[in-house]
Amino acid sequence: MEAPLLNPPRVLLLIVLCVGIFSLTEAAKVRRYKWEVKYEFKAPDCFRKLAISINGRTPGPTILAHQGDTIIVELKNSLLTENVAIHWHGIRQIGTPWSDGTEGVTQCPILPGETFIYKFVVDRPGTYLYHAHYGMQREAGLYGSIQVSVPNGTKEPFSYDYDRSLILTDWYHKNTYEQATGLSSIPFVWVGEPQSLLIQGKGRFNCSLLASPSLAPGTCNTSLPECSPFVLTVVPGKTYRLRVASLASLSAFNFEIEGHNMTVVEADGHNVEPFVIKNLNIYSGETYSVVVKADQDPSRNYWMGLNVVSRKPATPTGLAIFNYYPNHPRRMPTTPTPVGPLWNDSEYRLAQSLAIKARQGYIHPPPLTSHRQIILLNTQNSINGFRRWSVNNVSFTLPHTPYLIALKQNLKHAFDPIAPPDTYDYVNYDIFKLQDNPNATSSNSIYRLKLNSTVDIVLQNANTMVATNSETHPWHLHGHDFWVLGYGKGKFDPINDPKKYNLVDPIMKNTVPVHPYGWTALRFKADNPGVWAFHCHIEAHFYMGMGVVFEEELRRLGSYLYQSWDVGIQKAHTILN
Amino acid sequence: MEAPLLNPPRVLLLIVLCVGIFSLTEAAKVRRYKWEVKYEFKAPDCFRKLAISINGRTPGPTILAHQGDTIIVELKNSLLTENVAIHWHGIRQIGTPWSDGTEGVTQCPILPGETFIYKFVVDRPGTYLYHAHYGMQREAGLYGSIQVSVPNGTKEPFSYDYDRSLILTDWYHKNTYEQATGLSSIPFVWVGEPQSLLIQGKGRFNCSLLASPSLAPGTCNTSLPECSPFVLTVVPGKTYRLRVASLASLSAFNFEIEGHNMTVVEADGHNVEPFVIKNLNIYSGETYSVVVKADQDPSRNYWMGLNVVSRKPATPTGLAIFNYYPNHPRRMPTTPTPVGPLWNDSEYRLAQSLAIKARQGYIHPPPLTSHRQIILLNTQNSINGFRRWSVNNVSFTLPHTPYLIALKQNLKHAFDPIAPPDTYDYVNYDIFKLQDNPNATSSNSIYRLKLNSTVDIVLQNANTMVATNSETHPWHLHGHDFWVLGYGKGKFDPINDPKKYNLVDPIMKNTVPVHPYGWTALRFKADNPGVWAFHCHIEAHFYMGMGVVFEEELRRLGSYLYQSWDVGIQKAHTILN
Repeated sequence: MEAPLLNPPRVLLLIVLCVGIFSLTEAAKVRRYKWEVKYEFKAPDCFRKLAISINGRTPGPTILAHQGDTIIVELKNSLLTENVAIHWHGIRQIGTPWSDGTEGVTQCPILPGETFIYKFVVDRPGTYLYHAHYGMQREAGLYGSIQVSVPNGTKEPFSYDYDRSLILTDWYHKNTYEQATGLSSIPFVWVGEPQSLLIQGKGRFNCSLLASPSLAPGTCNTSLPECSPFVLTVVPGKTYRLRVASLASLSAFNFEIEGHNMTVVEADGHNVEPFVIKNLNIYSGETYSVVVKADQDPSRNYWMGLNVVSRKPATPTGLAIFNYYPNHPRRMPTTPTPVGPLWNDSEYRLAQSLAIKARQGYIHPPPLTSHRQIILLNTQNSINGFRRWSVNNVSFTLPHTPYLIALKQNLKHAFDPIAPPDTYDYVNYDIFKLQDNPNATSSNSIYRLKLNSTVDIVLQNANTMVATNSETHPWHLHGHDFWVLGYGKGKFDPINDPKKYNLVDPIMKNTVPVHPYGWTALRFKADNPGVWAFHCHIEAHFYMGMGVVFEEELRRLGSYLYQSWDVGIQKAHTILN
Repeated sequence: MEAPLLNPPRVLLLIVLCVGIFSLTEAAKVRRYKWEVKYEFKAPDCFRKLAISINGRTPGPTILAHQGDTIIVELKNSLLTENVAIHWHGIRQIGTPWSDGTEGVTQCPILPGETFIYKFVVDRPGTYLYHAHYGMQREAGLYGSIQVSVPNGTKEPFSYDYDRSLILTDWYHKNTYEQATGLSSIPFVWVGEPQSLLIQGKGRFNCSLLASPSLAPGTCNTSLPECSPFVLTVVPGKTYRLRVASLASLSAFNFEIEGHNMTVVEADGHNVEPFVIKNLNIYSGETYSVVVKADQDPSRNYWMGLNVVSRKPATPTGLAIFNYYPNHPRRMPTTPTPVGPLWNDSEYRLAQSLAIKARQGYIHPPPLTSHRQIILLNTQNSINGFRRWSVNNVSFTLPHTPYLIALKQNLKHAFDPIAPPDTYDYVNYDIFKLQDNPNATSSNSIYRLKLNSTVDIVLQNANTMVATNSETHPWHLHGHDFWVLGYGKGKFDPINDPKKYNLVDPIMKNTVPVHPYGWTALRFKADNPGVWAFHCHIEAHFYMGMGVVFEEELRRLGSYLYQSWDVGIQKAHTILN
């Protein structure tokens, strides 16, 4: 075989990869999972409905690994007529864009009866997630946790005795088909607020609301062990790292542990300059580690409470038990359940966003300038009578042929070749006004980024199609972490606001909120050849077009990696059999 | 291109095809349809739920064609995460097995966003159907009617003034995922009897049964025009051909028109020696034409009534209005609604089956002997704790790679190569006894038939896993019509019962019931190279394994047709664009 001609970026990429691979050889393991995805009846909040399970469970199995490990997930689709794809949220997939699991972007869906093999390296320690990235399947319960530890012998900059995980979600009784069909109907049909909030897959619905002569016995049953509250047992005096993650379909959350402080130490896999809070705001797609000491009266249990913020809550507080050993784990606290902050206090939430900085000694300095600035105005629109979300007046639609395949195979006509706009009419557009945005269109066009260029993204929020309403949108970037350079209120000023960017100690994240009527500025290096989605992590919003896609010179992926792509699944099969 | 070497069967096939094509050239048309399949909210019985629609409708558009026409259906799947496939029920697909639409047998499923083109010739006049043949999607409303007329200038052996169509179905409020998940759960969860019976897509559910504080307004609303009863308007004194077809998911039906006689003239596309009835028994997958004269008191309307038979009914009578013009079409008859015959009178139903003979002058004489006899014992079993239906102790499962593809590509390991048994232990097996059948296994193995051989099939019914219970199963054969040689009670005697076969004027059909504790004998010519399903047409029963597959020397399909297969879709695209 001929050696490929190496151009500088390709050499760089190979060096990075080799260093990455060999420096961790000693500790790195291959971790293999065999997962079967299927529908099962579940009652996570006491109401029996279909959920998509992995090996019978929702949340699915936790992936526990060390930095540098290779994860191989052999995913069998045992749904009857429905396809599937799983995204590894927060894993950058350096050199393995085909394992990102984003249907329509990086892969075709996995058909019923098929087995697809995901193979990727977890190259950074931290708290990550996985979840369905196809249609609105995430809401059906197809999700779980990825915890990547530092290599043995390496120390983290914070200490704890035990490591625990809590995934927070909201839960609907209507299935995802009903929800999606409503969203794409004329008139628009909105499913409403979720029925329950789940902590680590457990919640509690008030079954008496359903009383009906036609309701089959057992459809809603609060005595099921399956929906007893989640219990986190702690030993008095010990310190706990809680990995708190949100995969809400809709809700912004506020999480608290009655009577206990939490010290924030990690966000999306990056060390945070520690700060102490009583309540943690967390948005869909975000992960945090908080350190909590079991330092309160050990003769009783405490509530862990989950409340909806940003939208007017119509869902009861999600509850779990913070159980001091040796109290009985099912002993309910007699204290009032946590009520959370005012749901519409966006100043409070903005302040917490601003408090999150990179930890001293663990700062990744951002490039001081960028090559390109893309300002993304988030609006609601009506397109041909359908309610949609748009970005710079373009409502995103997924192509039938995934971009990664289309670009690799040089397929013409697979998607709209005209790039969407880099900005909007920020001089004249009134973000506080209810607007119709009649020129919005639907498109599957994408942004093409120069490899290794530095890109600034400004998310600009605005009024929705409801008067005096602006929502919180958590945006998630695939394939990268970005620096969070700033948050602001009102309309972003492209001349003056960049002067206030935090270039000293910005946190790196993969998911960040844009607050109501505000803006958020990010910077990232387009250093990962591939095709990467960047979208609002609210399931319905992405479905309704609130996203964009970045291509980063896929042709520079290098012949070595292209070969891996072709033989990857074959190899993985050999390993497995 | 080299001329292929022609062996006798291939020559025969080509001659048959050429004669078939050219003899009809004058009249034959190409009829093109563009269909989009998607979920929509529908309330066919006043209860709002998701249904799978074609171009917004369920039942889908009726295909009207003349004998010899070519049908091209460009089917776009606009479901969100779910695949689809449509079977053309009763169309033999001579030379076009890849258009049979049977997922897992003749094709891969059509993915969301994909367009698949079905192209086939309707080579015989008569009443046919189309419906989803993937998972349990048929139950979600994806079905319609195909009516093939005799060529212009040709006469049918019965006369009528108008031609009308009635598809009969049963309807569940639970979705197909819930039903299928229940069927494949341990313990087995049965959805129960249907909520409504629909006549031409319309029924009526008693909404007051659902009263619940949590029920969204409009979920069940008997004042919706969508669920007003179906009206068939007739002109006094005129004669109507009613094409009555059943696509019930579960139920066996009895259909009647209050105060009117019906003359049966067609069954599954074949002329029937006319006989007069008041009540028509019809099983899922069957089609009949009955001729009805509007010869009653024209000052009022009459009920058309649909009742469940064979299973103990727990579903109200399905009702439609037989409206004498110029009475108001919505004027309900004041007479009692039809109650149908005794549900468990299987003698009565057997008698009607026996009455159906080929019409004099239109008899296709059956071969007097057969090359092979296959006796198929139908039983219920438990396999690894799952409730299944089995045939000769083999519970059928679909392979991931469709047989047609696997056989064409000579793929090894695509399915179990060991053929299922041709018979069962009929000497010792007690069909009247509740039995465990502990040796039942699951398999995707198939029967391989010699091309142009004559095959006898005997369907043998037995007791289910419930004491003193045996059900009616309508079996449907793809790719062929068969002669119905006989029905009997009890256990089929392979020596003496064949002596009683009707070899004089047997009707040809594609779907036939096997009655409780009885047997049904069929004969067909394996003259259609391809792979063909033969299965119980009850949606849940086929899903639970009640089927077999016949392969008829696919390799003999001939290079010409193989080429058509490869270029067929391309060509169809050219035609369409």
